[in-house]
Amino acid sequence: MAAAELKAAGLSLATAESLTGGLLGSLLTSVPGVSACYRGGVIAYATEAKAHVLGVPADLLAAHGPVSVECARAMAEGTRRLFGADFGLATTGVAGPDTQDGHPVGTLFLGLAGPAGVTHAGLFSPAPGRNEIREWAAEEAFRLLLTALPGYSG
Amino acid sequence: MAAAELKAAGLSLATAESLTGGLLGSLLTSVPGVSACYRGGVIAYATEAKAHVLGVPADLLAAHGPVSVECARAMAEGTRRLFGADFGLATTGVAGPDTQDGHPVGTLFLGLAGPAGVTHAGLFSPAPGRNEIREWAAEEAFRLLLTALPGYSG
Repeated sequence: MAAAELKAAGLSLATAESLTGGLLGSLLTSVPGVSACYRGGVIAYATEAKAHVLGVPADLLAAHGPVSVECARAMAEGTRRLFGADFGLATTGVAGPDTQDGHPVGTLFLGLAGPAGVTHAGLFSPAPGRNEIREWAAEEAFRLLLTALPGYSG
Repeated sequence: MAAAELKAAGLSLATAESLTGGLLGSLLTSVPGVSACYRGGVIAYATEAKAHVLGVPADLLAAHGPVSVECARAMAEGTRRLFGADFGLATTGVAGPDTQDGHPVGTLFLGLAGPAGVTHAGLFSPAPGRNEIREWAAEEAFRLLLTALPGYSG
């Protein structure tokens, strides 16, 4: 899940997780020696935590809500800054079983902040089921990160 | 993993994870509706993140190291304060494959900060293997939390 590629490139990562709720961190830290590239992250499950811990602006949350491209981008920037990492990778969305703020179950927004700026992705899960959506979201998050790594041709 | 008991008691939780690296959060957020009690957490994998994000005092880290009862207690207090939760639950230890600062693989320190103060536990894994140790550590962390919940008779 990108750990080997980060280490090979000498780059560091921090995470900011809402939908995945710690799964990105748990997958990364299952790899021995990952402390060489993974600094840590914030599980920003409550909306207030997105603002208070990650520094997502309150007016952004009020205008776009926590399930939005804008929030994913700000979460990624927030964790990159907080941990002093090369990359910040963020997930927000709806794992279900209920819709949230009008967004259907399966909605996923990813944010990636790096040395070259901030990118994002908006996706929809091909599979139903809370844990299937979370696992799919983690895979998609690592895929987005990999595309930003220098020399990665996967 | 304590989510039902927390919700029944109307209490909130925040996590601070080093050894478990997001596993506590991932297990908690696998439960639908857990946002009623789980605020979020910090994955403080790098030692600097324990100081900078969770506010573990630098002199405490210098004196006792990140794998210590003292650090586990300070991490628990830090995340409780950061997320404004009733309880803060923290893990630090050695998942392996290498020893760390003289502590053998399987060492686990847990911290729990709550309305009545801070408690801790120092344990040693009965099973070898990085991921077995992480899963055992998560079980032990939730067990410590449950003992502190009012009305729990598990």
